[in-house]
Amino acid sequence: MRLAAIQFAPALHDLHATLGALQPHLDAACEADLIVLPELCNSGYNLPDRPTALAAAEPVAASAFLDHLAAFCAQHHCEIVTGFCEREREALYNSAVLVDANGPVETYRKLHLFMNEKDFFTPGDRGLPVVERPYGRVGMQVCFDWAFPEAWRALAMQGADIIAHPSNLVLPGRCQRAIPIHAMLNRVFIITGNRIGTEGALTFTGQSIIASPAGEVLAEAAQDNACVITAVIDPNAAHDKMLTPRNHAFDDRRADVYGSAGAS
Amino acid sequence: MRLAAIQFAPALHDLHATLGALQPHLDAACEADLIVLPELCNSGYNLPDRPTALAAAEPVAASAFLDHLAAFCAQHHCEIVTGFCEREREALYNSAVLVDANGPVETYRKLHLFMNEKDFFTPGDRGLPVVERPYGRVGMQVCFDWAFPEAWRALAMQGADIIAHPSNLVLPGRCQRAIPIHAMLNRVFIITGNRIGTEGALTFTGQSIIASPAGEVLAEAAQDNACVITAVIDPNAAHDKMLTPRNHAFDDRRADVYGSAGAS
Repeated sequence: MRLAAIQFAPALHDLHATLGALQPHLDAACEADLIVLPELCNSGYNLPDRPTALAAAEPVAASAFLDHLAAFCAQHHCEIVTGFCEREREALYNSAVLVDANGPVETYRKLHLFMNEKDFFTPGDRGLPVVERPYGRVGMQVCFDWAFPEAWRALAMQGADIIAHPSNLVLPGRCQRAIPIHAMLNRVFIITGNRIGTEGALTFTGQSIIASPAGEVLAEAAQDNACVITAVIDPNAAHDKMLTPRNHAFDDRRADVYGSAGAS
Repeated sequence: MRLAAIQFAPALHDLHATLGALQPHLDAACEADLIVLPELCNSGYNLPDRPTALAAAEPVAASAFLDHLAAFCAQHHCEIVTGFCEREREALYNSAVLVDANGPVETYRKLHLFMNEKDFFTPGDRGLPVVERPYGRVGMQVCFDWAFPEAWRALAMQGADIIAHPSNLVLPGRCQRAIPIHAMLNRVFIITGNRIGTEGALTFTGQSIIASPAGEVLAEAAQDNACVITAVIDPNAAHDKMLTPRNHAFDDRRADVYGSAGAS
């Protein structure tokens, strides 16, 4: 199967402009089976206040943005994971949504909110879902979740083969170094779809990345250009959890010793 | 304070030769406050069978090797963490021992045994000790423990500022990429003292490394030469667990969600 990440600059609180900027990249990625878009792709990141954020957000079940993506999926027989500014009544979530030809399949709400996101968004309350798809099992993370190895471990131990990671990364050279390590230690594929561009004081760092269960970087974008990166993979490779011929990534864990850092 | 790692080739089952090879590097590192030596430094790695391993091992409380190190510590007012082939009655452990001027202070027994080590050694049964020293709190890991993020997290959450990591790494480009990530995500200093040389089919990969709580590589050795690497640090920097001004490495954890991968 083919994985893709689209690296571009969504427009701030302007869905029409965002769809216009996104479309040529979707067209370029249409051969992929699973496409990952950046975090908060329907709204942009640096929303000035909570009323503006609420106005830019949509419910998962009534979203012009997700409808647009579902129509693309139907046309090209693919699936998309997108970052999504989600409104549920008066609550806002920084979410990732898996969309197929019929619409939204599963929603993940970001667990680890970054900096001032804490003023806008409610922390994730839907756990760490893993979705069974025809090509493999998909988990989701959003941006700053990268800094918590427990979340990657939990998704992998729940059977995720591929983790889609919509991002709006601003700290240079941190997440992009960690992603191949999370992939290697959990023996999963990871697709980080990061954005580019500047919003106010924030400059986003690009370098979208696709990493393999062996910890290899299969594809990596530059820091500041809009582009599509792709990799052809066998998702079954993520079923092999042997770090060496005699060391299993999960079975060799010493949960009896880790205490609150890792025991059940 | 000054940290050091000594990268050299211990001799296989020849303590006299090992001490001879080690001494010039100890002398070169004598300005350091804490020196880290490779894994199984008193025995070498690729022991042919269990009787040979038993013969090469020593008890912590009656070790010519540790006595030698303690005498050096007394002379130079420093401490050493060494990899140590430990015998306790008929059991063998792949251990790390913290030694000061008075002798052994604390012993850690490797939790995650690599490949054929499973045929020789008993898995660690002393947990993950953290030792209070005048300069800071020290935890220990040994070689393949690098592949289990839970252990680094557990040591950091127990208050370790500095994690000493005696190693005999053979998989190129894996651990040495992960160490700065473990340091960054847990906001600790890590000193990986790796060996060089060849024993039978095994070639050790050098590249000993000292990493900071910011994820910086403070010092790194080449792949195949014996040497000392050092770094001057402020161990108090590891007390600051803020990943950003509003994100705490431990307090932002969502232990309610991680399940068996991270909840207590």
